[in-house]
Amino acid sequence: MNQSRDEFYLKKCFELAVKGKGLVSPNPMVGSVVVKGNRVVGYGWHRAFGLAHAEVEALKMAGTKAKNATLYVNLEPCCHYGKTPPCTDAIIQAGIKKVVFSTIDPNPAVNGKSIEILKQNGIEVRYGLCEKESHQLNESYFTFVKKKRPFISLKWAMSIDGKIADACGRSRWITSDDARQFARQLRFEYDAIIVGSNTIVYDNPYLDFCAPCGIRKSLVERKKFYKIILDTNLKVVPESNVFLNKASNVIIFTAHDTSINTKYHENVEIIPVDKDQEGLLDLSQILNCLYEKGIAKLFVEGGTKILTSFYHHKIFDLIYVFIGCKIIGGSADYPPLKGNIISPDTQSDIILKDVIRFSNDVLLIIKKCSQE
Amino acid sequence: MNQSRDEFYLKKCFELAVKGKGLVSPNPMVGSVVVKGNRVVGYGWHRAFGLAHAEVEALKMAGTKAKNATLYVNLEPCCHYGKTPPCTDAIIQAGIKKVVFSTIDPNPAVNGKSIEILKQNGIEVRYGLCEKESHQLNESYFTFVKKKRPFISLKWAMSIDGKIADACGRSRWITSDDARQFARQLRFEYDAIIVGSNTIVYDNPYLDFCAPCGIRKSLVERKKFYKIILDTNLKVVPESNVFLNKASNVIIFTAHDTSINTKYHENVEIIPVDKDQEGLLDLSQILNCLYEKGIAKLFVEGGTKILTSFYHHKIFDLIYVFIGCKIIGGSADYPPLKGNIISPDTQSDIILKDVIRFSNDVLLIIKKCSQE
Repeated sequence: MNQSRDEFYLKKCFELAVKGKGLVSPNPMVGSVVVKGNRVVGYGWHRAFGLAHAEVEALKMAGTKAKNATLYVNLEPCCHYGKTPPCTDAIIQAGIKKVVFSTIDPNPAVNGKSIEILKQNGIEVRYGLCEKESHQLNESYFTFVKKKRPFISLKWAMSIDGKIADACGRSRWITSDDARQFARQLRFEYDAIIVGSNTIVYDNPYLDFCAPCGIRKSLVERKKFYKIILDTNLKVVPESNVFLNKASNVIIFTAHDTSINTKYHENVEIIPVDKDQEGLLDLSQILNCLYEKGIAKLFVEGGTKILTSFYHHKIFDLIYVFIGCKIIGGSADYPPLKGNIISPDTQSDIILKDVIRFSNDVLLIIKKCSQE
Repeated sequence: MNQSRDEFYLKKCFELAVKGKGLVSPNPMVGSVVVKGNRVVGYGWHRAFGLAHAEVEALKMAGTKAKNATLYVNLEPCCHYGKTPPCTDAIIQAGIKKVVFSTIDPNPAVNGKSIEILKQNGIEVRYGLCEKESHQLNESYFTFVKKKRPFISLKWAMSIDGKIADACGRSRWITSDDARQFARQLRFEYDAIIVGSNTIVYDNPYLDFCAPCGIRKSLVERKKFYKIILDTNLKVVPESNVFLNKASNVIIFTAHDTSINTKYHENVEIIPVDKDQEGLLDLSQILNCLYEKGIAKLFVEGGTKILTSFYHHKIFDLIYVFIGCKIIGGSADYPPLKGNIISPDTQSDIILKDVIRFSNDVLLIIKKCSQE
């Protein structure tokens, strides 16, 4: 009875949390509900990075009704000073009687400490319910904190005969408007998008995200979004479309031995890294650098070289395969991935999670199931 | 009012007709209902090639109640002696008052002639309702009669990175059990399956169909099924699995200048054809030969060379793309199609008709929309 009541309100927290998608990173998405008797007296969610936490929003709405009430929240409340004061302080001050949350926050500054603090202040604490859903909700946050690298999604769009570009390297457009619009909205869920210099040179894309309908403009404007280019020899010219939108930051990773003669815009940062054994820019150095910058969710848009590199190192969490109902043919210079990776009878480490159909295209969402 | 009543019973005919799927070819699928007042007094469908036509089945069930009744049937009744006597005779003899059918039978021996015969015998005739559905139902029959070639479906199974085999040519297994079972049941809808000799050599498949549940064994045993191999140099050995099932006929097309030294089984026919300008076996000669043999529905299972050839000549009607949730990689020796065919911004002549999801695979059903 109590179990299902607690689960019911935790699921409300999940629903609220999702409203922060694309806006809170590298923080987790969090929703909170304050319940007194059988009435919800306050609710809130973390709206954007730097703004109040969900618990504080919910307590603010509850006001004095928070006294002796139960506070629900999907993740362990924080107990440290970040951009905002500790939520445990706010909970104690509001006179909350019981806290129910789903998952312990793996952030070393929290990681179960709040449980003790709350208990020491006479607050009953219950946790561990709906852990699977809670983990799925903030999968990218858990990956970021535990693996110390961004959550990584590979994405490509290919024809029904498995080509991501024609023999001349052109990939505009394999999919139709509605699928491409969906892909731009997917970018919104990420902190950064990464492509190779060839993609910039051949396709000259803008790489801008598109916010889904109904999100306040003032919140969208707070979003920090990085466009990242891997450009060993700095061949990307400053006139490229990717630099046009000054609201985004651009990072160009290049090789240590490349001389930087080009003058780029102010929002462009050039970061030299080592080359690996195969002469490619060192992926672990790049990911380390992105981790340090607080990039928790990375969208890898190709082309073949970069996608293969991530796949080869087994550093990815999700794959989005858009399939456009077109045939390109060609002598296969541009498949999504190269290199003899596995044979078809090998046990696969990926599973089909979802299939989304558009008018004339399909999106396969594929999840990695094995551990790194 | 009358319109919707007639449409209602014609749709019943469509439902009955489908029960003959995979069994009646090269005949069309036909269902028939005899209605007197507001009661269905008889119904039937063409169960298998060589057995009674739908109208005859329905009239037999109706017996004397057929007198002054209305007979519904999806296709114009036949008026010629084929494997069975003309249906027009049976309709006239039964005392039917009115005949309602959907589409004129394009077979030159019929093609509207029955309308006159029935009218001359005092029977009211109405036709042309639900023509679109009727045409879709027997699309393969109409293609066979009008284009004088089989209705052709291309089929391949590829990984999410667009490969139909690994670097060694192995393609077992890209998709999972449930998708492969579905593909074997798809074969049942066809009269013949065609592959290249490489597929036989590398994969050694049986190429047998699988009848869907609920179809009487005696009917399945009547089904004539051809396995066709394109083998320019006759390199397929008689020990191959494809020859094992003696219930199927095997046709090997080879080149005129290939000497036939191998002794194959009795159910194997070897047919020499010319080579085209590219040194491949001449496709139009092959299709002509299949047309003459009454093969109305052809399933093209690959590999790359044959699929490309059909696509290149624009001789196909449907494409089945099975996508297995696996990654093969490889330097792209085995994409589904080769040859620089179109660029992605070209207007496509194919549209996505259906998407079917299996546990870990997806099937895209794609239709050609332009005319040959």
